[in-house]
Amino acid sequence: MILTVTLNAALDITYRVPRLRPHRTHRITEVSERPGGKGVNVARVLAALGHRTVATGFAGGGTGDALRALLAETAVTDALVPVGGATRRTVAVVDGTTGDTTQLNEPGPTVSPAEWDTFLGTYRELLGEARAVALCGSLPPGVPVDVYARLTRAARTAGVPVLLDTSGEPLRRGLAARPDLAKPNADELAALTGSTEPLRAARDTRRRGAHAVAASLGPDGMLAVTADGSWQAAPPRRFAGNPTGAGDSAVAGLLSGLVEDLPWPARLARAVALSAATVRAPAAGEFDRATYEELRERVVVTDHSPAA
Amino acid sequence: MILTVTLNAALDITYRVPRLRPHRTHRITEVSERPGGKGVNVARVLAALGHRTVATGFAGGGTGDALRALLAETAVTDALVPVGGATRRTVAVVDGTTGDTTQLNEPGPTVSPAEWDTFLGTYRELLGEARAVALCGSLPPGVPVDVYARLTRAARTAGVPVLLDTSGEPLRRGLAARPDLAKPNADELAALTGSTEPLRAARDTRRRGAHAVAASLGPDGMLAVTADGSWQAAPPRRFAGNPTGAGDSAVAGLLSGLVEDLPWPARLARAVALSAATVRAPAAGEFDRATYEELRERVVVTDHSPAA
Repeated sequence: MILTVTLNAALDITYRVPRLRPHRTHRITEVSERPGGKGVNVARVLAALGHRTVATGFAGGGTGDALRALLAETAVTDALVPVGGATRRTVAVVDGTTGDTTQLNEPGPTVSPAEWDTFLGTYRELLGEARAVALCGSLPPGVPVDVYARLTRAARTAGVPVLLDTSGEPLRRGLAARPDLAKPNADELAALTGSTEPLRAARDTRRRGAHAVAASLGPDGMLAVTADGSWQAAPPRRFAGNPTGAGDSAVAGLLSGLVEDLPWPARLARAVALSAATVRAPAAGEFDRATYEELRERVVVTDHSPAA
Repeated sequence: MILTVTLNAALDITYRVPRLRPHRTHRITEVSERPGGKGVNVARVLAALGHRTVATGFAGGGTGDALRALLAETAVTDALVPVGGATRRTVAVVDGTTGDTTQLNEPGPTVSPAEWDTFLGTYRELLGEARAVALCGSLPPGVPVDVYARLTRAARTAGVPVLLDTSGEPLRRGLAARPDLAKPNADELAALTGSTEPLRAARDTRRRGAHAVAASLGPDGMLAVTADGSWQAAPPRRFAGNPTGAGDSAVAGLLSGLVEDLPWPARLARAVALSAATVRAPAAGEFDRATYEELRERVVVTDHSPAA
């Protein structure tokens, strides 16, 4: 199975309003809820691709119960660890006039040292069956900032390939533990390296410890810098829609390609096709299958290897 | 005891953000939750004034559980009727720069005919012990639009005085059943009668069926048109703060004055003092006791009776 870790899982709530007017009162006509947090989104896409997938991390309170009830409706196996605090909510307010989204993200519950220990035990046990693990997203209060370095080392000790998708200090610390693959986006690359030139920044990120770097570049697709070479994959055209979750779908594409032992260009093509198909779907963790099938063989992959 | 009815009770969530920027992502640093809906707010203020208070209406789902857990921390007796759907959330986003609030209100669960019947049974039973009842707020989907007329007739049959605080068609229909007191605000008065002149509009509203009308006029206080005369009560000065819940506190003031058989000018003075004290408190259903005590005897009541 493939394991995904979401330390700050979320109950994702979406409100649609005809128009968002600051300092006014809005009657919401359409409310939807989904199990959320980056690793949970990755798990849902992996499961939809037919991979046996287990999601761990923390869940607690009434919002945690709601998250777990929604996760039970998917093909993802729930291995979330109970926590005393309440799982955070994220509220996305979609403006029906402009199509833009205003996002309000709660911080998440504080994790106690005992809860953290319980999680580590669960994580190590799950690694015994995992063919790959994705470590995804921001950290809840109370979790040590070097957590992804620790989780990466535990996975490498167990011989399980690690994909790291986070930002800021947790990314910087996690890279030092030498994950197999890091997936920053362009903003995260720039924040980490100070360079806004993606190829230069991805190479720099690789020197900081990741064995490979696959950087998502929004509508421009994805750039990979690996021991085997460098490639850029781009969709054949631009897709209008909601980009939320596109990066999580790219992670699912990369991770499924890794366990299926696809060559790098095919992994990137899958990741980019899934990203674009997610932009065409209403919500993170979901993708438009027709778009995915259409694009899988139409993504253009360019070799950027120094020898190419 | 005093009974309050909240057919569309809510879990009130407040987010504080440094500044609300549409179409951006906000990390919320401060989250608070309260039991909400107008009748629940009224009940909390009545209980804080020392009145034995029972809150009924509907509650369901994880959000209903959260609402009931928060209500259990107050002195209000919970007589909410279970419903299959989930209690609505309201999200108030407070902009730390301007102090203004952007409000997002979910519609609430659809109430089935069987749930509605169960509620009516509970309501009739509670009326047997009630000294007064407040019917408050908007209607959830599935509840007949003439509901407040039915609930008013049942209370009058049981000899229990009724205060009606709602708007639009439910107000229009409810007035025809001759409640003892209606408490519209200036906007609701204007929408009902077409007149923006409060005294004229309140008199018109009384002709539509209410035995008395007490109209809340925001910072200008409150205007009452009754069989015994007409009065306007105004706070001695303007109060800066959050007006959310000020109208609910006014209802609690009027209702407690009714069961204590206070003369009308004293009821209005109490309602206006409580309103102003709520503006000075952080949340609906709460009031600043020092402001209340200071203002009780400083509210200026003017006689507007035709004979005066």
